[in-house]
This record gives sequence, structure tokens and C-alpha cells, in this order.
Amino acid sequence: VSKKPSEFKLISLISKELPLPAERVELGIGDDAAVLKPARGHALLCSDAMVEGVHFDLNYATPEDIGHKALAACLSDLAAMNGRPVGIVVSLALPQDRAAKFLDGFYKGARAIAQSCGCDIVGGDLSSSPNEIFIDVACYGETDHPISRSGAKPGDLVAVSGTLGGSSAGFKSLSGGYDTSDSLKQKHLRPQPRFDLVGTPEFAVACTSLIDISDGLASELSHLAEKSRVGFEIQSANIPLHDEATLHDGLYGGEDYELLATFMPGASIPDGFTVLGRVTDSGLTMVHADGERETLQPQGFDHFSS
Amino acid sequence: VSKKPSEFKLISLISKELPLPAERVELGIGDDAAVLKPARGHALLCSDAMVEGVHFDLNYATPEDIGHKALAACLSDLAAMNGRPVGIVVSLALPQDRAAKFLDGFYKGARAIAQSCGCDIVGGDLSSSPNEIFIDVACYGETDHPISRSGAKPGDLVAVSGTLGGSSAGFKSLSGGYDTSDSLKQKHLRPQPRFDLVGTPEFAVACTSLIDISDGLASELSHLAEKSRVGFEIQSANIPLHDEATLHDGLYGGEDYELLATFMPGASIPDGFTVLGRVTDSGLTMVHADGERETLQPQGFDHFSS
Repeated sequence: VSKKPSEFKLISLISKELPLPAERVELGIGDDAAVLKPARGHALLCSDAMVEGVHFDLNYATPEDIGHKALAACLSDLAAMNGRPVGIVVSLALPQDRAAKFLDGFYKGARAIAQSCGCDIVGGDLSSSPNEIFIDVACYGETDHPISRSGAKPGDLVAVSGTLGGSSAGFKSLSGGYDTSDSLKQKHLRPQPRFDLVGTPEFAVACTSLIDISDGLASELSHLAEKSRVGFEIQSANIPLHDEATLHDGLYGGEDYELLATFMPGASIPDGFTVLGRVTDSGLTMVHADGERETLQPQGFDHFSS
Repeated sequence: VSKKPSEFKLISLISKELPLPAERVELGIGDDAAVLKPARGHALLCSDAMVEGVHFDLNYATPEDIGHKALAACLSDLAAMNGRPVGIVVSLALPQDRAAKFLDGFYKGARAIAQSCGCDIVGGDLSSSPNEIFIDVACYGETDHPISRSGAKPGDLVAVSGTLGGSSAGFKSLSGGYDTSDSLKQKHLRPQPRFDLVGTPEFAVACTSLIDISDGLASELSHLAEKSRVGFEIQSANIPLHDEATLHDGLYGGEDYELLATFMPGASIPDGFTVLGRVTDSGLTMVHADGERETLQPQGFDHFSS
């Protein structure tokens, strides 16, 4: 029993830096729920959890890094629906004796990425935890044209944004102490949701299915294949690998938070995307430069078994 | 690395029982985010976390109980905004060797309370955890008339729904092995969000501030007082205690998830509420039957320090 309900601490942590953006947030943190002004179109809701020792390690990530990444991972799901974020709630559970060192940095990183994506933290929960730090982020967003995983058709082109494998290679560098560039480490610690690539009318017309790469290219291709009841044939030489990443990093590494999309045949591929191949009737096939055909296994980075 | 991304497990757990209600949920679990159809009015978003060993104990609560309570606690926040729920996302982290025994019961209890409140689970996340089970629930809801904590005015009446202290007395019985009624234990294990009492035009007109009792009456009165910049004077004899609860349970016990509301002077108090006293300019005062005046301490059940 304490004289200071935990909510007060959360409010003061979040509200001391900046006023909440009032245009869409009618009532932010400090009440039972945030009040958000809905727009026309479709509301989006998603959540993403991170557990200390499973998803992050304070030996190589700062609290700011963790705040950034926890929100980026969830926000990326909104980008992958062709959406934009409106409000975020963050639940945290952590050992009380580690709270002072963790919370300020965490919320600083979290609010910075939220605001850079045009939204803010509007509420959440704070609790004690006996051992590990637990973080859960729920994002509410909106879109005029949700793009699901189920719209790919045989003959469509499949493309990916940015470069792949950098997060995995950065993770290996950070956790193993390899000497690599700071920019590679940032690929793991500070992924950027790709709101810059979605949301235009042209994108909504051309794109037939969309997913973000949280579990690695092979795994996300299998998700699109399953939901759209199609297959894929991609060229290994086309995969835009990060300079310091291997093909294995790109296929199976995960946490790049780039977008994997299919586009109608004949559509002009938007800037920022690289065509990997095409949608087929079935199967996950990667064709190597020498013509050898390999069946991709839909394995990826599975946080549940790690 | 696993061949089965964890998401598949979550999808199968949630979707195997019942189809999702299609009217408001345009796209449920299985994509990057749930797509919800917004209505006119105000969108609500809140989250509530529960940690094993802090908020629940599998020695006296079943997985079904825990699923029920995790959602009830978050849903209650929507009721406390005069709202109704639209969609819920649930993030779970748990040791993999305990997943099989826990998840089915958890989702059974969670979906039952969601559906009894007119909504359903539309997404979430599932992860491993090294030790404790961690649960976070985020609820998206809506209301035509959000009722905040900040609208109480001196002269208003203050009232509470249902009875208080049952959850605290039930917790003591469960954790201490005291012999009490099953109904008392249910007060702790299966709280009911009070959507039955809110949402009517009459309620929105009469009610000036609203909060749910998660931390105990004294603590929630202090929240209303702080946000509304008022005080309270309540009569101890008026507090509707549960038959098996003490006054201390009712004041400081928490987790009853009843509603604490203020109403305009002269308003007819809705059925289900008991008037405790009135709103004053400042201070938290409880008047005993013998006329003695006691200043209430705003302490309650603080999960962060427990």
C-alpha cells in the first residue's frame, strides 16, 4: 500500500515534457481512457509486446533505444495496414528498484518516435514486476484504405522497401561484440516505421497486399502466401541486402520493419521499393543467379521460442 | 528459430471457437492490425496490465478467472468514460512450458467477458517470458458523451454503484485460506464492468464526473478531487459495503470495479447507485454516525508497490 497511486507517476512522466497534441486527442492521459477524435474511414488497433531477456537486453540497448523500438514495432503494424497512427497506450511492468533508471529514458525514446510519426502516447499502465521488464504497446490508427495480407493475386509483382538484414546483422554485432558500424547497430536499435511510403491514393490503388517485415522475409512471404492463398517466386539477386548483412540475415533475420508489398501487374512500383519477383499460384521459391531453384522455409525470428 | 510463428498460435486460439462479429470488426485477428468501423462520436483507448505474483496467483485463480479479470479491469475503464467497447487486443508473455496449460482457459475466460460486454478480442501479441506470466489488455471503445474525472462541482452529489469491499475481502479469503462464501471469492475473481449503468442520455445529462473503483474508494475520491479541483464529504454509514466486507475493505481494498460518480444537484440518482455525500470545495472528509469527522487518506491498492 502506497500513498501515491502509480498512475500519478505515469502521468507525470509522460506529461512533463510536452503538451499533448489537442487536435486529435480530446483527452489524453490522466483519465480512465484516452478520448480520440475518430476520422472518416477505418480505425486500426494493434499491440506488440517486448520482454527483457527475450526482445531486448539493457547490456547493449539504452532505455531510450527500447522506448523507441517498442513503439516502432507496433507503429510499423499500422504502416503495414496503409494506416497512420492517432494514439498510443503503453503498459509497463518493471522491478521498482530499477524504475528510476529506466522510465525517463524509455518515455523519452518512446515519445520521440511517436511524435516523429505524428502521434503521441495518450495513456497506459504502470505496474511492478518481480524480475523482468515487460512492455506492451497498443496503437490506434486510421486509414481510408486498409490493405490486408490477403489481396495478392498470381501475376502481381512482389517488392520490398529499404534494405533487409541490417537489424539481424546489427543484433549479432551488439550481442556478440563484433566491431561494426554504428549505423548497423542503429538498424537493430532504432528501426523506422515506413509511414513515408504509404497512405497516398496511388499506393492504395496499386498495392494489393501489404505486411511489415518483423520476422524475416521468408516468414513474411509465407504469411502473405497463406492469407492470399498464393505462392511467390523471387530472385535472390534482387533482394536489397544491407551492406553489412548476409543473405541469411535478409531472409531469416527479422526486425527490419520494412514493408513487403504486392502490386498489380503493370502498376508503377513506388519509389523506395525493390521488386523481388512475382506472385505465383503456390509455393515459396527463390531463384539463384545461376538458375538454381530453392524452396524457402517459412522460418523466421520467433520470439515465442527464443 | 521455429517453423511456426507465434502469431499462428494466437490466431488459432482465438478464432477456433467463434467467428468474429462482423458488423463492427471489418478485419479481426490475423493481419497487422484489427480494422474497426468507427461510429460517430468519440473513440476511447485504454490499457491495463496484470503480472503474475503481483496481480494474480494461479494457486487460487484459474486461467479462466485471469482471462476474465484482465479484460474486465480494462473494460471497466471504458464504462468509467460512459463508453462502450468496440474491440480488444490482448498481449500475453509467458514461459513456453506453461503455455499449453494456461492459454486455452485464459482465452475462454477472456472471450466470454468480452462477448458479454458486446465486443470481442480482435488481435494481440504472444511472446515468451523467462519467469512470470505478463498480460496486457488494450480496449478501443466509443461514446457519444465522454464523462471525465474533472467535471465535479461543489454541491454535486457523490454516489457509488453496487457494493464495495467484496473484492478485497474475497482476496483475503482466497490468499489466506479463510472459509467464506463462493460468491465473495467471485467478487475478487470475476468483477463485472458496469456497462449496465452508463450510456443513456439521462445518465450523460445528470452525471458530472465518473471513475471506476480499481484502487479503493478513498483513492478514487482523491482522483476525482484532484482532477476536478474539489473536495468530498461522505457519510460512512452510507457506504454500501458488501455483506462480508469491513469498512477498511470498502475504503482501501480496491478492485471492486464499481463506478464512482458525481451528479448535478437535484438530478435523480440512477438506479444502482447509492449516494455517499456531496462535493465540497476541498478536503476528503468522512463523517461517522456519531458525528466524528475523519480525513480520508488517499491510499489504495497500489500495484506498483505491492
